[in-house]
Amino acid sequence: MRLTRQTNYAIRILMYCAANEGRLSRIPDIAQAYSLSDLFLFKILQPLVEAGFVQTVRGRNGGVKLAKPAEEITLFDVVRVTEESFAMAECFESDTECPLVEGCGLNEALRKALGAFFEVLASYTIQDLIDARPNMRDLLGLDVQLDRAAAPI
Amino acid sequence: MRLTRQTNYAIRILMYCAANEGRLSRIPDIAQAYSLSDLFLFKILQPLVEAGFVQTVRGRNGGVKLAKPAEEITLFDVVRVTEESFAMAECFESDTECPLVEGCGLNEALRKALGAFFEVLASYTIQDLIDARPNMRDLLGLDVQLDRAAAPI
Repeated sequence: MRLTRQTNYAIRILMYCAANEGRLSRIPDIAQAYSLSDLFLFKILQPLVEAGFVQTVRGRNGGVKLAKPAEEITLFDVVRVTEESFAMAECFESDTECPLVEGCGLNEALRKALGAFFEVLASYTIQDLIDARPNMRDLLGLDVQLDRAAAPI
Repeated sequence: MRLTRQTNYAIRILMYCAANEGRLSRIPDIAQAYSLSDLFLFKILQPLVEAGFVQTVRGRNGGVKLAKPAEEITLFDVVRVTEESFAMAECFESDTECPLVEGCGLNEALRKALGAFFEVLASYTIQDLIDARPNMRDLLGLDVQLDRAAAPI
């Protein structure tokens, strides 16, 4: 049982943008912070843009920023967009061959367990993840970038 | 996010044995009920035997039965034995490259969510799943087998 890489990196991208609130985050900088290719990053960004979590600004000085406050994006919101399926078992699908499918207690138990899982995720926002760690900007190399930008040419 | 096929069928095998309590369940009968090969069934049985959930009886009239009451086997007990990993994301593993790994709030949020998931699973026993469905024996073809066994040759 594991979340997809998409979900994992989607959350990290949102954390990066939240830690860099008030500024545009450059794709190559985010990619470098997480050792990802720009291409993979763009792939993950797409559903985040469509869901209204981030917005992109094109051009030479372009980048990406949160489209809504980090306090208003919960982990459940993200997971719902990035995970492909929450079919915990064959009996969540319509084409199961299990003879017990009609009303078997397993399906109900798994649904309740998944509900409890989601409830905890819904109680955490992207801002909570940022607040949990005071030196987030350091860890992401964000202040290094500012220094570099401010340095004389 | 999905449970493995092993987990899914392990629970179903235990349900079969529980529904057939007091008798030995034949491997070919369980396999037929769930449209599985005998070989795959044996593969799933092995960890269930090792964990003390079922015991096998060899020989022509052999089969498998629960090694402890169905009320004493929770879904959490089963999942703990049959799922290979609960590393929800890269940051659960020691070789992650994420710069945020030390104390990032995501890891904590996912651990709590997984804890809530497990807590629900721990509240359901195999017997609960059987009790949820009054005609379980019918659905598994168990009474058909008894009729057949009792029929004159």
